[in-house]
Amino acid sequence: MKYTGKVKKLLKSVKIGDKVRVESQGEVFKGHLMPRAGASGGILVLKLGNGYNIGLKPDKVKRLKGPRRVKRVKVKAKNDKKKKSISILLAGGTISSKVDYRTGAVKPAMTADEIITFTPIIRELANIKARVLFQLLSENMTPKQWNIIAKEVAKEVKAGADGVVIMHGTDVMHYTSAYLSYALQDLPVPVVLVGAQRSTDRASCDTHVNLSCAVKAAISDIAEVMVCMHEGLSDDACVLHQGTRVRKNHSSRRDAFKSIGVLPFVRVYYPSLEAEFLRDDYARRDPSRKIKLVNGFESKVALVKAHPGMSPKLISSFKGFKGLVLEGTGLGHVPVKSSAQNKKVLSALKKFKGLILMTSQAIDGRVDMNVYETGRDLLKIGVLGNYLNMTPEAAYAKMIWVLGNAKNKEEAKRLINTSIAGEFTERSEVL
Amino acid sequence: MKYTGKVKKLLKSVKIGDKVRVESQGEVFKGHLMPRAGASGGILVLKLGNGYNIGLKPDKVKRLKGPRRVKRVKVKAKNDKKKKSISILLAGGTISSKVDYRTGAVKPAMTADEIITFTPIIRELANIKARVLFQLLSENMTPKQWNIIAKEVAKEVKAGADGVVIMHGTDVMHYTSAYLSYALQDLPVPVVLVGAQRSTDRASCDTHVNLSCAVKAAISDIAEVMVCMHEGLSDDACVLHQGTRVRKNHSSRRDAFKSIGVLPFVRVYYPSLEAEFLRDDYARRDPSRKIKLVNGFESKVALVKAHPGMSPKLISSFKGFKGLVLEGTGLGHVPVKSSAQNKKVLSALKKFKGLILMTSQAIDGRVDMNVYETGRDLLKIGVLGNYLNMTPEAAYAKMIWVLGNAKNKEEAKRLINTSIAGEFTERSEVL
Repeated sequence: MKYTGKVKKLLKSVKIGDKVRVESQGEVFKGHLMPRAGASGGILVLKLGNGYNIGLKPDKVKRLKGPRRVKRVKVKAKNDKKKKSISILLAGGTISSKVDYRTGAVKPAMTADEIITFTPIIRELANIKARVLFQLLSENMTPKQWNIIAKEVAKEVKAGADGVVIMHGTDVMHYTSAYLSYALQDLPVPVVLVGAQRSTDRASCDTHVNLSCAVKAAISDIAEVMVCMHEGLSDDACVLHQGTRVRKNHSSRRDAFKSIGVLPFVRVYYPSLEAEFLRDDYARRDPSRKIKLVNGFESKVALVKAHPGMSPKLISSFKGFKGLVLEGTGLGHVPVKSSAQNKKVLSALKKFKGLILMTSQAIDGRVDMNVYETGRDLLKIGVLGNYLNMTPEAAYAKMIWVLGNAKNKEEAKRLINTSIAGEFTERSEVL
Repeated sequence: MKYTGKVKKLLKSVKIGDKVRVESQGEVFKGHLMPRAGASGGILVLKLGNGYNIGLKPDKVKRLKGPRRVKRVKVKAKNDKKKKSISILLAGGTISSKVDYRTGAVKPAMTADEIITFTPIIRELANIKARVLFQLLSENMTPKQWNIIAKEVAKEVKAGADGVVIMHGTDVMHYTSAYLSYALQDLPVPVVLVGAQRSTDRASCDTHVNLSCAVKAAISDIAEVMVCMHEGLSDDACVLHQGTRVRKNHSSRRDAFKSIGVLPFVRVYYPSLEAEFLRDDYARRDPSRKIKLVNGFESKVALVKAHPGMSPKLISSFKGFKGLVLEGTGLGHVPVKSSAQNKKVLSALKKFKGLILMTSQAIDGRVDMNVYETGRDLLKIGVLGNYLNMTPEAAYAKMIWVLGNAKNKEEAKRLINTSIAGEFTERSEVL
């Protein structure tokens, strides 16, 4: 609703959502202008940095300063030949979200131009082209979107991009990064997924730091699929995680993403953007290498977490499915003995016609179905994944990718047991 | 199969499975005597410490030393009035397992007497009574066993035990510890779950350290349900985790159990068994307090992990179930938009008649369904758990407990949103 009367006069060219500075009764308030609160159009409402709203009487306002209206930068494809050319693909998520000050909701709605102008440092690092693929909160993505992203990245690389950055929601970014790791083979240049845990309207917004480090990663020598996010709680560094060995381990913290069972490839300090290499087992940039796009996918795959007293329906419901990824307990177990219901879980698994792949809900560590009889029962019925240490998420993306690309069941089994993109390691190391 | 001829003569009183020391051709081999390999009864087979088998010709054996046959300690209930009385309940798992040298499999089969004699230090700490409840690998446990354990612990406490130790498999020990935390109310004494990641036939066996620290915890002042496990990779300390805030985070490492979002209550150094308190917000031992056993349970509950492209069958299959715990992505989301299949997930949730509780597969951090529209859609249909930070496992055990004890749906909802045993915290702290 619009403001009226004295407030309207006070606001002049200031618009809803603009950041303003208000002096009133000897105090200074900084915040975003909110829509008028209900019928009281005579009260000025600001959302302060701490998230609270404050109402101010126009009579008491001594001074109100709106934002400096910056002349809109027209982003031209001015090509600096000394710089690398980076393509940014927008896929939605918090990192490309704006707050709708009318509803208070955060929606992925930034334009490509807004992204580029919002973090100016990236244009100093590289020639930037940006375009929107789609604008989804990542929790709503499906393997169909993984397929689209893979195709569009390959298109950019074939068109000569020296690196690709994908701006992506964080909820399931690690599922997407795993799929892209399998689908984009023989990468000649870096592919970097980047997200934000806090949207740009918040003081703790991590967009600038993450995006700056991501573009730095994209012009680097590391021709891998990576995830670039905050390393810790302060703004001093990001890390580049291997696409198949990363996981979101906190619902809201900026350092939510962690490498599992390996170190990140690199730490990128901010704001210096200096790189510190933590590993050297990565593919090097090589523009002469031809990217191979292998982006089939099979949607009839389910991910099921085992638990005490689990219903056999968690298995039997997936009749006709091509693949089942189990998130077992411990070394890779599901309940199969000692109660009638457990035994039904085992028979449902026996009846399942597709491939079954075991992982562990402990997340870190290796599957070993040889130690206990529960595991041996599972091995006997052909459950795959023994001795591997894939995260459940990387394993789920792998099953979808394998079944979408393998010519037959035998090839699929072979691919499951082959490391395509570092999704399992030969040895476990104590980090 | 039994050995014959020269080997049989060499072995004398040594039995299959015994630890032996063999000198042969100038080398010393230490290992467990294995059953004879197939038809070759003339070759002595040892399983070495590194897990490999070695075959030795009896002619070349210079010396073979079997185990010293210790006179079997008869465990008497010799009561030292100066010491506290601790009841140990065996529920199976690696910690009470023996290797079957015939098959190589590890099975939970120790007797109560064996446990007590195996770790003599615990009899110096307290008067120990031990009995077997059941011998299950924990992955096969169901809420029925949780109920039995709760009942038996209460029985011991009512009979005057100064503390109870439960020897339990590690796979799902954190599910059981959560249930016991809800079911055993107004605890006057400590209740400690303890497990082992490596069985007693292995050099890296953690049974002694974990059990010693667990008995120390059971005679302590902390009247809470706790999990006692190795803190790090060496044998120098265990930690006592709060029963509702602990998780198995590695499939095989001895330090697999971690507190989530809180510190453990105490560090217990080994072998000194000195305690270092890390928190002070625990109930104190008070023998005058009367334990309250609230051990109902509802089996018609499912735990479902959301994932990109998830099938609506993961929801619709549970028609008739009383509760559904969702392991959502990020702040607590499931796919509900942007594709026909996602929309079916939302309608399946709308149709579900029981209680739905949201948690996060990020494991750490709080659920907040108010930030994004996906979450708001879920709040609208009555999904519970907003602003809580329960682990999915503690939430699953809670749903089972709440629905098994609440008089009606309204009381159940109220209990879900009430902290029963510290399963969610009021504030999040950076640890």
